[in-house]
Amino acid sequence: MPEVSKPRRAVVLLSGGLDSVTVLAIARGEGYAVHALSFRYGQRHVFELESAARQAARWGVEEHVVCDLSIGRFGGSALTDASIEVPQGRSEGEMSAGVPVTYVPARNTVFLAHALALAEVRGANDLFIGVNAIDYSGYPDCRPEFIAAFEAMARLATRSGTEGAALTIRAPLQRMTKADIVREGLRLGVDYADTHSCYSPDPTGAACGRCDACQLRLKGFEQAGVRDPARYAVG
Amino acid sequence: MPEVSKPRRAVVLLSGGLDSVTVLAIARGEGYAVHALSFRYGQRHVFELESAARQAARWGVEEHVVCDLSIGRFGGSALTDASIEVPQGRSEGEMSAGVPVTYVPARNTVFLAHALALAEVRGANDLFIGVNAIDYSGYPDCRPEFIAAFEAMARLATRSGTEGAALTIRAPLQRMTKADIVREGLRLGVDYADTHSCYSPDPTGAACGRCDACQLRLKGFEQAGVRDPARYAVG
Repeated sequence: MPEVSKPRRAVVLLSGGLDSVTVLAIARGEGYAVHALSFRYGQRHVFELESAARQAARWGVEEHVVCDLSIGRFGGSALTDASIEVPQGRSEGEMSAGVPVTYVPARNTVFLAHALALAEVRGANDLFIGVNAIDYSGYPDCRPEFIAAFEAMARLATRSGTEGAALTIRAPLQRMTKADIVREGLRLGVDYADTHSCYSPDPTGAACGRCDACQLRLKGFEQAGVRDPARYAVG
Repeated sequence: MPEVSKPRRAVVLLSGGLDSVTVLAIARGEGYAVHALSFRYGQRHVFELESAARQAARWGVEEHVVCDLSIGRFGGSALTDASIEVPQGRSEGEMSAGVPVTYVPARNTVFLAHALALAEVRGANDLFIGVNAIDYSGYPDCRPEFIAAFEAMARLATRSGTEGAALTIRAPLQRMTKADIVREGLRLGVDYADTHSCYSPDPTGAACGRCDACQLRLKGFEQAGVRDPARYAVG
Protein backbone atom coordinates (compact mmCIF):
# COMPACT_ATOMS: atom_id res chain seq x y z
CA MET A 1 0.00 0.00 0.00
CA PRO A 2 1.26 3.51 -0.70
CA GLU A 3 2.45 5.40 2.30
CA VAL A 4 0.06 8.18 3.26
CA SER A 5 2.04 11.19 4.41
CA LYS A 6 0.47 13.29 7.13
CA PRO A 7 -0.17 16.92 6.12
CA ARG A 8 2.07 19.50 7.74
CA ARG A 9 0.32 21.59 10.35
CA ALA A 10 0.33 25.38 10.49
CA VAL A 11 -1.16 28.03 12.73
CA VAL A 12 -2.62 30.92 10.70
CA LEU A 13 -3.38 34.27 12.37
CA LEU A 14 -6.78 35.16 10.94
CA SER A 15 -8.28 38.59 11.55
CA GLY A 16 -10.89 38.32 8.81
CA GLY A 17 -9.28 41.11 6.80
CA LEU A 18 -8.10 41.01 3.20
CA ASP A 19 -4.50 40.13 4.08
CA SER A 20 -5.07 37.36 6.61
CA VAL A 21 -7.76 35.66 4.51
CA THR A 22 -5.35 35.65 1.54
CA VAL A 23 -2.72 34.09 3.82
CA LEU A 24 -5.23 31.41 4.87
CA ALA A 25 -5.84 30.62 1.19
CA ILE A 26 -2.09 30.41 0.55
CA ALA A 27 -1.54 28.03 3.49
CA ARG A 28 -4.43 25.79 2.41
CA GLY A 29 -3.21 25.99 -1.19
CA GLU A 30 0.17 24.64 -0.02
CA GLY A 31 -1.64 21.71 1.60
CA TYR A 32 -1.25 22.65 5.27
CA ALA A 33 -3.69 21.39 7.89
CA VAL A 34 -4.57 24.78 9.39
CA HIS A 35 -5.29 25.83 12.96
CA ALA A 36 -6.78 29.30 12.55
CA LEU A 37 -6.36 31.72 15.45
CA SER A 38 -8.32 34.94 16.03
CA PHE A 39 -8.58 37.35 18.95
CA ARG A 40 -11.13 39.42 20.77
CA TYR A 41 -8.95 42.24 22.10
CA GLY A 42 -11.39 45.05 22.60
CA GLN A 43 -11.77 45.98 18.95
CA ARG A 44 -14.46 48.56 18.31
CA HIS A 45 -16.51 46.10 16.25
CA VAL A 46 -16.88 42.35 15.68
CA PHE A 47 -17.45 42.35 11.91
CA GLU A 48 -13.93 41.12 11.19
CA LEU A 49 -14.34 38.22 13.64
CA GLU A 50 -17.57 37.19 11.93
CA SER A 51 -15.79 37.20 8.55
CA ALA A 52 -12.93 35.21 10.11
CA ALA A 53 -15.31 32.49 11.30
CA ARG A 54 -16.98 32.19 7.88
CA GLN A 55 -13.65 32.15 6.02
CA ALA A 56 -12.22 29.53 8.41
CA ALA A 57 -15.19 27.26 7.63
CA ARG A 58 -15.00 27.98 3.90
CA TRP A 59 -11.30 27.04 3.75
CA GLY A 60 -11.73 23.84 5.76
CA VAL A 61 -9.52 24.50 8.76
CA GLU A 62 -8.93 21.87 11.45
CA GLU A 63 -10.17 24.30 14.09
CA HIS A 64 -10.79 28.00 14.57
CA VAL A 65 -9.62 29.15 18.00
CA VAL A 66 -10.78 32.57 19.24
CA CYS A 67 -8.86 33.92 22.23
CA ASP A 68 -9.89 36.72 24.54
CA LEU A 69 -7.11 39.20 25.25
CA SER A 70 -6.80 41.99 27.80
CA ILE A 71 -4.41 44.22 25.86
CA GLY A 72 -7.26 46.47 24.70
CA ARG A 73 -7.78 47.43 28.35
CA PHE A 74 -4.23 48.84 28.47
CA GLY A 75 -5.39 51.63 26.15
CA GLY A 76 -3.15 53.63 23.83
CA SER A 77 -4.79 52.90 20.47
CA ALA A 78 -7.65 54.30 18.43
CA LEU A 79 -8.64 50.72 17.57
CA THR A 80 -9.42 49.83 21.19
CA ASP A 81 -10.15 53.20 22.82
CA ALA A 82 -13.35 54.93 21.72
CA SER A 83 -12.03 58.28 23.00
CA ILE A 84 -9.27 58.32 20.33
CA GLU A 85 -10.55 59.15 16.85
CA VAL A 86 -9.72 56.93 13.87
CA PRO A 87 -8.04 59.16 11.24
CA GLN A 88 -9.90 59.58 7.97
CA GLY A 89 -8.72 60.65 4.54
CA ARG A 90 -4.99 60.68 5.32
CA SER A 91 -2.67 61.06 2.34
CA GLU A 92 0.06 58.52 1.57
CA GLY A 93 2.60 61.04 2.81
CA GLU A 94 0.80 61.28 6.14
CA MET A 95 0.60 57.48 6.40
CA SER A 96 4.34 57.08 5.92
CA ALA A 97 5.26 59.85 8.39
CA GLY A 98 5.26 57.71 11.55
CA VAL A 99 3.42 55.27 13.76
CA PRO A 100 -0.32 56.17 13.62
CA VAL A 101 -2.82 56.24 16.50
CA THR A 102 -4.43 53.05 15.16
CA TYR A 103 -1.28 51.14 16.20
CA VAL A 104 -2.12 48.71 19.04
CA PRO A 105 0.96 48.45 21.28
CA ALA A 106 2.83 45.16 20.78
CA ARG A 107 -0.21 43.58 19.13
CA ASN A 108 1.64 41.36 16.66
CA THR A 109 4.04 40.24 19.41
CA VAL A 110 1.07 39.19 21.56
CA PHE A 111 -0.70 37.53 18.59
CA LEU A 112 2.42 35.61 17.50
CA ALA A 113 3.14 34.57 21.11
CA HIS A 114 -0.28 32.91 21.26
CA ALA A 115 0.26 31.34 17.84
CA LEU A 116 3.53 29.92 19.13
CA ALA A 117 1.81 28.41 22.18
CA LEU A 118 -0.93 26.85 20.02
CA ALA A 119 1.63 25.60 17.49
CA GLU A 120 3.64 23.89 20.18
CA VAL A 121 0.61 22.10 21.62
CA ARG A 122 -0.73 21.05 18.19
CA GLY A 123 2.61 20.02 16.71
CA ALA A 124 2.75 22.76 14.06
CA ASN A 125 6.12 24.10 12.89
CA ASP A 126 4.87 26.96 10.71
CA LEU A 127 3.14 30.15 11.84
CA PHE A 128 1.53 32.26 9.11
CA ILE A 129 0.93 35.99 9.52
CA GLY A 130 -0.36 38.49 6.96
CA VAL A 131 2.01 41.37 7.63
CA ASN A 132 2.98 43.52 4.71
CA ALA A 133 5.88 45.94 4.45
CA ILE A 134 4.91 47.71 1.22
CA ASP A 135 1.31 48.96 1.42
CA TYR A 136 1.02 49.21 5.17
CA SER A 137 0.18 51.68 7.90
CA GLY A 138 3.63 52.24 9.44
CA TYR A 139 3.29 49.79 12.34
CA PRO A 140 6.73 48.76 13.69
CA ASP A 141 5.60 45.17 14.20
CA CYS A 142 4.86 44.67 10.51
CA ARG A 143 8.48 45.09 9.40
CA PRO A 144 10.56 42.17 8.06
CA GLU A 145 13.23 42.74 10.73
CA PHE A 146 10.61 42.28 13.45
CA ILE A 147 9.39 39.02 11.90
CA ALA A 148 12.96 37.70 11.63
CA ALA A 149 13.67 38.60 15.26
CA PHE A 150 10.46 36.94 16.43
CA GLU A 151 11.42 33.76 14.59
CA ALA A 152 14.88 33.72 16.21
CA MET A 153 13.28 34.20 19.64
CA ALA A 154 10.59 31.57 19.01
CA ARG A 155 13.16 28.92 18.18
CA LEU A 156 14.68 29.43 21.64
CA ALA A 157 11.36 29.74 23.46
CA THR A 158 9.84 26.34 22.97
CA ARG A 159 10.31 22.68 23.60
CA SER A 160 10.10 21.92 19.87
CA GLY A 161 12.61 24.66 19.13
CA THR A 162 15.09 23.25 21.61
CA GLU A 163 14.55 19.74 20.27
CA GLY A 164 15.57 20.72 16.76
CA ALA A 165 12.34 21.34 14.83
CA ALA A 166 12.76 24.26 12.45
CA LEU A 167 10.01 26.56 13.63
CA THR A 168 9.30 29.12 10.92
CA ILE A 169 7.33 32.36 10.76
CA ARG A 170 5.84 32.58 7.29
CA ALA A 171 4.89 36.06 6.10
CA PRO A 172 4.11 35.40 2.43
CA LEU A 173 2.65 38.88 1.77
CA GLN A 174 5.65 40.68 3.23
CA ARG A 175 7.08 42.02 0.00
CA MET A 176 3.92 42.07 -2.13
CA THR A 177 1.96 45.17 -3.10
CA LYS A 178 -1.72 45.27 -2.17
CA ALA A 179 -2.51 44.75 -5.87
CA ASP A 180 -0.31 41.62 -5.95
CA ILE A 181 -2.11 40.33 -2.84
CA VAL A 182 -5.52 40.84 -4.43
CA ARG A 183 -4.42 39.12 -7.63
CA GLU A 184 -2.95 36.14 -5.73
CA GLY A 185 -6.08 35.81 -3.61
CA LEU A 186 -8.39 35.89 -6.63
CA ARG A 187 -6.26 33.23 -8.32
CA LEU A 188 -6.73 31.02 -5.23
CA GLY A 189 -10.48 31.68 -5.12
CA VAL A 190 -10.75 34.07 -2.17
CA ASP A 191 -14.18 35.64 -1.77
CA TYR A 192 -13.17 39.21 -0.91
CA ALA A 193 -16.80 40.27 -0.47
CA ASP A 194 -16.62 38.49 2.89
CA THR A 195 -13.45 40.09 4.22
CA HIS A 196 -13.47 43.05 6.56
CA SER A 197 -10.64 45.63 6.60
CA CYS A 198 -12.27 48.92 7.70
CA TYR A 199 -11.34 50.48 11.06
CA SER A 200 -14.59 52.51 11.22
CA PRO A 201 -17.50 50.54 9.76
CA ASP A 202 -21.05 51.84 10.08
CA PRO A 203 -23.48 49.96 12.35
CA THR A 204 -24.39 47.58 9.52
CA GLY A 205 -20.73 46.66 8.92
CA ALA A 206 -20.36 48.70 5.71
CA ALA A 207 -16.79 50.01 5.26
CA CYS A 208 -16.11 53.77 5.52
CA GLY A 209 -13.81 54.00 2.49
CA ARG A 210 -11.71 56.71 4.13
CA CYS A 211 -9.62 55.21 6.98
CA ASP A 212 -6.05 54.06 6.26
CA ALA A 213 -7.13 50.42 5.91
CA CYS A 214 -9.91 51.22 3.42
CA GLN A 215 -7.68 53.51 1.39
CA LEU A 216 -4.88 50.92 1.11
CA ARG A 217 -7.41 48.25 0.18
CA LEU A 218 -9.20 50.34 -2.45
CA LYS A 219 -5.91 51.35 -4.02
CA GLY A 220 -4.92 47.67 -4.21
CA PHE A 221 -8.10 46.68 -6.03
CA GLU A 222 -7.83 49.67 -8.34
CA GLN A 223 -4.24 48.81 -9.27
CA ALA A 224 -5.24 45.17 -9.80
CA GLY A 225 -7.96 46.39 -12.15
CA VAL A 226 -10.72 44.72 -10.14
CA ARG A 227 -13.73 46.16 -8.36
CA ASP A 228 -13.62 45.63 -4.57
CA PRO A 229 -16.73 43.52 -3.85
CA ALA A 230 -16.88 44.58 -0.16
CA ARG A 231 -19.82 46.71 0.93
CA TYR A 232 -19.06 50.42 1.40
CA ALA A 233 -21.23 53.06 3.06
CA VAL A 234 -22.63 55.45 0.47
CA GLY A 235 -21.61 59.11 0.79
CA MET B 1 14.26 74.94 43.67
CA PRO B 2 15.85 71.55 43.17
CA GLU B 3 14.73 69.66 40.11
CA VAL B 4 12.57 66.67 40.95
CA SER B 5 13.43 63.78 38.68
CA LYS B 6 10.62 61.48 37.71
CA PRO B 7 11.15 57.85 38.78
CA ARG B 8 11.84 55.40 35.99
CA ARG B 9 8.93 53.09 35.25
CA ALA B 10 9.14 49.31 35.03
CA VAL B 11 6.73 46.48 34.36
CA VAL B 12 7.33 43.55 36.74
CA LEU B 13 5.90 40.11 35.96
CA LEU B 14 4.53 38.99 39.31
CA SER B 15 3.28 35.44 39.82
CA GLY B 16 3.32 35.60 43.60
CA GLY B 17 6.07 32.99 43.86
CA LEU B 18 9.42 33.31 45.62
CA ASP B 19 11.32 34.45 42.53
CA SER B 20 8.92 37.07 41.19
CA VAL B 21 8.33 38.63 44.62
CA THR B 22 12.10 38.93 45.06
CA VAL B 23 12.28 40.62 41.66
CA LEU B 24 9.55 43.05 42.73
CA ALA B 25 11.60 43.91 45.84
CA ILE B 26 14.71 44.43 43.69
CA ALA B 27 12.87 46.75 41.27
CA ARG B 28 11.37 48.79 44.12
CA GLY B 29 14.77 48.81 45.87
CA GLU B 30 16.26 50.38 42.73
CA GLY B 31 13.59 53.10 42.89
CA TYR B 32 11.42 52.08 39.96
CA ALA B 33 7.76 53.05 39.81
CA VAL B 34 6.35 49.57 39.23
CA HIS B 35 3.44 48.34 37.13
CA ALA B 36 2.94 44.77 38.35
CA LEU B 37 1.43 42.30 35.88
CA SER B 38 -0.13 38.92 36.73
CA PHE B 39 -2.15 36.40 34.74
CA ARG B 40 -5.07 34.08 35.13
CA TYR B 41 -4.21 31.41 32.58
CA GLY B 42 -6.08 28.39 33.81
CA GLN B 43 -3.75 27.56 36.68
CA ARG B 44 -5.03 24.79 38.92
CA HIS B 45 -5.26 27.16 41.89
CA VAL B 46 -5.42 30.89 42.69
CA PHE B 47 -3.21 30.95 45.79
CA GLU B 48 -0.28 32.49 43.93
CA LEU B 49 -2.51 35.27 42.52
CA GLU B 50 -3.72 36.08 46.02
CA SER B 51 -0.11 36.33 47.22
CA ALA B 52 0.70 38.49 44.18
CA ALA B 53 -2.05 40.97 45.06
CA ARG B 54 -0.90 41.26 48.69
CA GLN B 55 2.76 41.62 47.72
CA ALA B 56 1.92 44.27 45.10
CA ALA B 57 0.16 46.31 47.78
CA ARG B 58 2.94 45.73 50.31
CA TRP B 59 5.61 46.95 47.88
CA GLY B 60 3.66 50.05 46.84
CA VAL B 61 3.21 49.47 43.12
CA GLU B 62 1.57 52.05 40.86
CA GLU B 63 -0.97 49.45 39.74
CA HIS B 64 -1.45 45.68 39.70
CA VAL B 65 -2.89 44.52 36.40
CA VAL B 66 -4.30 40.97 36.21
CA CYS B 67 -4.89 39.68 32.68
CA ASP B 68 -7.01 36.73 31.65
CA LEU B 69 -5.32 34.46 29.14
CA SER B 70 -6.65 31.63 26.99
CA ILE B 71 -3.41 29.66 26.65
CA GLY B 72 -4.48 27.23 29.39
CA ARG B 73 -7.31 26.12 27.08
CA PHE B 74 -4.73 25.00 24.50
CA GLY B 75 -3.71 22.19 26.90
CA GLY B 76 -0.36 20.45 26.94
CA SER B 77 0.75 21.16 30.51
CA ALA B 78 0.23 19.61 33.92
CA LEU B 79 -0.17 23.12 35.33
CA THR B 80 -3.31 23.83 33.31
CA ASP B 81 -4.69 20.36 32.53
CA ALA B 82 -6.06 18.42 35.50
CA SER B 83 -5.73 15.15 33.57
CA ILE B 84 -1.90 15.40 33.56
CA GLU B 85 -0.35 14.58 36.91
CA VAL B 86 2.15 16.96 38.56
CA PRO B 87 5.34 14.95 39.21
CA GLN B 88 6.31 14.49 42.85
CA GLY B 89 9.62 13.63 44.46
CA ARG B 90 11.75 13.89 41.32
CA SER B 91 15.51 13.79 41.83
CA GLU B 92 17.77 16.58 40.57
CA GLY B 93 18.95 14.22 37.82
CA GLU B 94 15.37 13.72 36.68
CA MET B 95 14.73 17.48 36.76
CA SER B 96 17.72 18.20 34.53
CA ALA B 97 16.88 15.44 32.02
CA GLY B 98 14.53 17.45 29.79
CA VAL B 99 11.48 19.67 29.57
CA PRO B 100 8.96 18.48 32.22
CA VAL B 101 5.18 18.11 31.90
CA THR B 102 4.71 21.21 34.06
CA TYR B 103 6.08 23.32 31.20
CA VAL B 104 3.32 25.59 29.84
CA PRO B 105 3.94 26.03 26.10
CA ALA B 106 5.36 29.46 25.26
CA ARG B 107 4.21 30.85 28.60
CA ASN B 108 7.06 33.29 29.16
CA THR B 109 6.79 34.50 25.56
CA VAL B 110 3.09 35.25 26.11
CA PHE B 111 3.75 36.86 29.51
CA LEU B 112 6.58 39.05 28.21
CA ALA B 113 4.53 40.04 25.15
CA HIS B 114 1.83 41.41 27.47
CA ALA B 115 4.47 43.13 29.59
CA LEU B 116 5.80 44.75 26.45
CA ALA B 117 2.34 46.02 25.50
CA LEU B 118 1.76 47.43 28.99
CA ALA B 119 5.24 48.96 29.08
CA GLU B 120 4.68 50.75 25.80
CA VAL B 121 1.37 52.24 26.92
CA ARG B 122 2.71 53.28 30.35
CA GLY B 123 6.05 54.62 29.14
CA ALA B 124 8.20 51.99 30.87
CA ASN B 125 11.52 50.98 29.32
CA ASP B 126 12.37 48.09 31.66
CA LEU B 127 10.60 44.74 31.94
CA PHE B 128 11.50 42.59 34.95
CA ILE B 129 11.09 38.82 34.95
CA GLY B 130 12.13 36.31 37.63
CA VAL B 131 13.61 33.61 35.41
CA ASN B 132 16.50 31.64 36.77
CA ALA B 133 18.93 29.48 34.85
CA ILE B 134 20.63 27.73 37.78
CA ASP B 135 18.03 26.20 40.10
CA TYR B 136 15.21 25.82 37.58
CA SER B 137 12.93 23.21 36.12
CA GLY B 138 14.37 22.85 32.62
CA TYR B 139 11.93 25.17 30.85
CA PRO B 140 13.37 26.43 27.52
CA ASP B 141 11.91 29.91 28.06
CA CYS B 142 13.91 30.46 31.25
CA ARG B 143 17.31 30.35 29.55
CA PRO B 144 19.48 33.48 29.13
CA GLU B 145 19.59 33.03 25.34
CA PHE B 146 15.78 33.18 25.23
CA ILE B 147 15.72 36.38 27.29
CA ALA B 148 18.37 37.99 25.05
CA ALA B 149 16.43 37.03 21.92
CA PHE B 150 13.19 38.40 23.35
CA GLU B 151 14.91 41.71 24.11
CA ALA B 152 16.25 41.96 20.55
CA MET B 153 12.77 41.25 19.18
CA ALA B 154 11.06 43.67 21.58
CA ARG B 155 13.28 46.55 20.48
CA LEU B 156 12.01 46.05 16.92
CA ALA B 157 8.38 45.43 17.91
CA THR B 158 7.36 48.72 19.41
CA ARG B 159 6.98 52.39 18.74
CA SER B 160 9.36 53.23 21.60
CA GLY B 161 11.90 50.72 20.31
CA THR B 162 11.83 52.27 16.85
CA GLU B 163 12.10 55.76 18.30
CA GLY B 164 15.34 54.97 20.09
CA ALA B 165 14.43 54.17 23.71
CA ALA B 166 16.59 51.35 25.03
CA LEU B 167 13.99 48.80 26.00
CA THR B 168 15.57 46.28 28.37
CA ILE B 169 14.52 42.90 29.73
CA ARG B 170 15.88 42.68 33.28
CA ALA B 171 16.31 39.17 34.67
CA PRO B 172 18.24 39.89 37.89
CA LEU B 173 17.94 36.33 39.26
CA GLN B 174 19.20 34.75 36.08
CA ARG B 175 22.58 33.63 37.33
CA MET B 176 21.79 33.37 41.07
CA THR B 177 21.33 30.17 43.01
CA LYS B 178 18.06 29.75 44.91
CA ALA B 179 20.02 30.32 48.15
CA ASP B 180 21.39 33.63 46.77
CA ILE B 181 17.85 34.67 45.82
CA VAL B 182 16.54 33.93 49.31
CA ARG B 183 19.43 35.85 50.92
CA GLU B 184 18.91 38.86 48.62
CA GLY B 185 15.16 38.87 49.28
CA LEU B 186 15.62 38.69 53.05
CA ARG B 187 18.10 41.57 52.87
CA LEU B 188 15.45 43.63 51.05
CA GLY B 189 12.76 42.69 53.55
CA VAL B 190 10.69 40.20 51.54
CA ASP B 191 8.07 38.34 53.59
CA TYR B 192 8.49 34.84 52.15
CA ALA B 193 5.67 33.48 54.31
CA ASP B 194 3.33 35.16 51.83
CA THR B 195 4.81 33.79 48.62
CA HIS B 196 3.42 30.75 46.86
CA SER B 197 5.62 28.41 44.79
CA CYS B 198 3.95 24.98 45.02
CA TYR B 199 2.42 23.36 41.91
CA SER B 200 0.13 21.08 43.98
CA PRO B 201 -1.10 22.86 47.10
CA ASP B 202 -3.75 21.27 49.28
CA PRO B 203 -7.21 22.87 49.40
CA THR B 204 -6.09 25.26 52.16
CA GLY B 205 -3.12 26.49 50.10
CA ALA B 206 -0.47 24.59 52.06
CA ALA B 207 2.50 23.59 49.87
CA CYS B 208 3.10 19.89 49.09
CA GLY B 209 6.86 19.93 49.68
CA ARG B 210 7.44 17.33 46.94
CA CYS B 211 6.84 18.91 43.51
CA ASP B 212 9.81 20.37 41.59
CA ALA B 213 8.98 23.93 42.69
CA CYS B 214 8.79 23.00 46.38
CA GLN B 215 11.99 20.96 46.23
CA LEU B 216 13.98 23.76 44.58
CA ARG B 217 12.59 26.26 47.07
CA LEU B 218 13.29 24.13 50.15
CA LYS B 219 16.83 23.41 48.95
CA GLY B 220 17.37 27.17 48.54
CA PHE B 221 16.28 27.97 52.07
CA GLU B 222 18.32 25.07 53.45
CA GLN B 223 21.47 26.26 51.66
CA ALA B 224 20.83 29.82 52.85
CA GLY B 225 20.60 28.46 56.39
CA VAL B 226 17.11 29.84 56.92
CA ARG B 227 13.82 28.10 57.68
CA ASP B 228 11.22 28.52 54.88
CA PRO B 229 8.35 30.36 56.59
CA ALA B 230 5.77 29.18 54.01
CA ARG B 231 3.05 26.78 55.19
CA TYR B 232 3.58 23.13 54.21
CA ALA B 233 1.08 20.29 54.44
CA VAL B 234 2.07 17.85 57.15
CA GLY B 235 2.73 14.32 56.02
